Amino acid sequence: MHDYDLLLTGARLATLAGDAGYGLVDDGALAVRDGRIAYAGPRAALPSTAARAHEDLGGALVTPGLIDCHTHLVFAGERIGEFEQRLTGVDYASIARNGGGIASTVRATRAASEDALVEATLPRARALVADGVTTVEIKSGYGLDADSEPKMLRAARRVGEALGIGVRTTFLGAHALPPEFAGRADAYIDLVCDTMLPAVAEAGLADAVDAFCEGIGFDPAQTRRVFEAARRHGLPVKLHADQLSDLGGAALAAEFGGLSADHVEYASEAGARAMAAAGTVAVLLPGAFVCLRETRLPPIEAFRRHGVRMAVATDCNPGTSPLLSLRLAMALACVQFRLTPEEALRGATVEAARALGLDDRGRLVAGQRADLAVWDAAQPAELCYWLGGGGARAVYAGGRRIG
Amino acid sequence: MHDYDLLLTGARLATLAGDAGYGLVDDGALAVRDGRIAYAGPRAALPSTAARAHEDLGGALVTPGLIDCHTHLVFAGERIGEFEQRLTGVDYASIARNGGGIASTVRATRAASEDALVEATLPRARALVADGVTTVEIKSGYGLDADSEPKMLRAARRVGEALGIGVRTTFLGAHALPPEFAGRADAYIDLVCDTMLPAVAEAGLADAVDAFCEGIGFDPAQTRRVFEAARRHGLPVKLHADQLSDLGGAALAAEFGGLSADHVEYASEAGARAMAAAGTVAVLLPGAFVCLRETRLPPIEAFRRHGVRMAVATDCNPGTSPLLSLRLAMALACVQFRLTPEEALRGATVEAARALGLDDRGRLVAGQRADLAVWDAAQPAELCYWLGGGGARAVYAGGRRIG
Ligand SMILES: [Zn+2]
Ligand SMILES: [Zn+2]
Repeated sequence: MHDYDLLLTGARLATLAGDAGYGLVDDGALAVRDGRIAYAGPRAALPSTAARAHEDLGGALVTPGLIDCHTHLVFAGERIGEFEQRLTGVDYASIARNGGGIASTVRATRAASEDALVEATLPRARALVADGVTTVEIKSGYGLDADSEPKMLRAARRVGEALGIGVRTTFLGAHALPPEFAGRADAYIDLVCDTMLPAVAEAGLADAVDAFCEGIGFDPAQTRRVFEAARRHGLPVKLHADQLSDLGGAALAAEFGGLSADHVEYASEAGARAMAAAGTVAVLLPGAFVCLRETRLPPIEAFRRHGVRMAVATDCNPGTSPLLSLRLAMALACVQFRLTPEEALRGATVEAARALGLDDRGRLVAGQRADLAVWDAAQPAELCYWLGGGGARAVYAGGRRIG
Repeated sequence: MHDYDLLLTGARLATLAGDAGYGLVDDGALAVRDGRIAYAGPRAALPSTAARAHEDLGGALVTPGLIDCHTHLVFAGERIGEFEQRLTGVDYASIARNGGGIASTVRATRAASEDALVEATLPRARALVADGVTTVEIKSGYGLDADSEPKMLRAARRVGEALGIGVRTTFLGAHALPPEFAGRADAYIDLVCDTMLPAVAEAGLADAVDAFCEGIGFDPAQTRRVFEAARRHGLPVKLHADQLSDLGGAALAAEFGGLSADHVEYASEAGARAMAAAGTVAVLLPGAFVCLRETRLPPIEAFRRHGVRMAVATDCNPGTSPLLSLRLAMALACVQFRLTPEEALRGATVEAARALGLDDRGRLVAGQRADLAVWDAAQPAELCYWLGGGGARAVYAGGRRIG
């Protein structure tokens, strides 16, 4: 008789069990039963050693599997040629005039079959997994019509099944104005609210709803309409908020009890206060910050002062953040935003789970999903210290080795 | 009878053969004999197919093996705790007072055996190789005494032998003032010039000589003395120049016909002009720039205007640039310094070779060393586009598969 399906010993556990600190356990043991953590703590207190499989990790660090809570991982086509053009001096306006920019991704994504989208996404998802990710949020937003948005969300779910990782889908119909609605943004928002969102909700394809609230995106009034539609359909909201200017996006997300407000470089003190009151997580995206050579830092001190929870994500997308490593996002959050390594690790685990409305993962405590990453590292801060370098030594999702 | 030891076909070659452009060859073939490239060009023009080993790459991109021309890869100890302290608000001065900073690396490196230094360095070197590196420059500079500096250089050479990669060693005795010389910088420079450098040169342990010319390092007069000693011993020079302030380091390196001036964020127009006239390469180090949150960009436009060659390197070191991927340095050089992907790739291959005084590598042309990286990429710019993600599919050094 086996008490556990899997037993890992010789582990240095960063459990993140409490509200602060790494929750380090030296000479720790972690036992898995039915895909959940049955025990995580000192080996000396392990109730049983009867396990179907047992591995001694030789002192390796074990953290919760990383959770990438903001990505645009599903897309077709590529923007590498455009990346090179911009760096050789072609201005963005003329790239856009020639059908480049997000419009090219929308064209390619609309044209791609669901199978083709899955195939295109798998290598990117595998790269994230290799660096420790076990749950990834994936947004729609390159389909922008009634067929292509659900297609993206279905493809996202299939990527999760193919790799055995958790996927949370977010409907981002209000990402950009599709070309056929040029000059008619309100009419497009009608379509999003009255047709696309209800269909996606009814089909159970989305776990949340997001919008791009920005001068170059949708205005606060349009965003509010999307949020009201989400509320009517019982879906929680998140928001691309205050990335390039302060439109009050953080407070708007909070007003709707949003799971998160993301980017938030220009979020105001009032925005931070509202987020804290609503429990809305600030999702920091240093990849886009670095790739866009931004200089305005998110108001980290205000977030700390008001008790706003902070998460860190890759924002992996083909235009502004082609980032294939959540650990690199954590490191950039430390060196560029001055997050502490502990904030960065919590931000890519327990706080990222919170930003997705999940409480069954992100910590190494009994009852949580057995999502783990094993690292050749002596201390948790090392995960944020090196830029580049090898990924995780091993990755488990639901107790199954997936990387 | 075999004409070649190895034949690769189905390759998209980025030969970098000319003075500009990628030198792309579609449906290319590359043949190796005796560790050198015997043929690189269109498959249709391949003189023979008689090869001991033959692999079809299925259209994969092949570039010259990457060359990391500025690293501090050999060191003992770690600075991860200090990294975390700084981010939790402990100021640098009190870290230094408690023996942290470079002093802690010097202590650990002095205390380490040569074997221990090799062991500590191998994982870092392997990480670089996994991302396509076949030649790496390694500096001394954490020993700072007559025994420890040669020990570092011997360890560096052994790392190269262990991994089958090219290693170029640089004597950087004038990196920092060792504690036993506090307040007596000129006396330490006496030791460097009269004892350490001659011994290293006589033992054939160094391929070049470097110094840290900066307000917090050595002044231009001290640097000049080191360069004069290098000249007496027939060693070429390089310089940590104008990183945090303009001390005229770029021009000083050029005056001595330096192989390179490195960092150079504050290099002046006159410095750029002098570098161009002397053929001194500007080695750009975006890792340190990002990790230190610097804002002063190197004068890329002036370098282009004057025809200064530009290289890109990791500056891998435990304090200011814990970067384990040269491809990441290339990507950061593009997004932060606005280098073109072509400049970044040339900067990590043919121009990096120039910065090391090497002309036998860095391009895919007959006669060069068979140092290659094979990538799952359709176009060269893709190497600079993704941040993070998988490394090279295969790496060959001297025609031998090493990664
Ligand atoms: Zn986004
Ligand atoms: Zn350096």
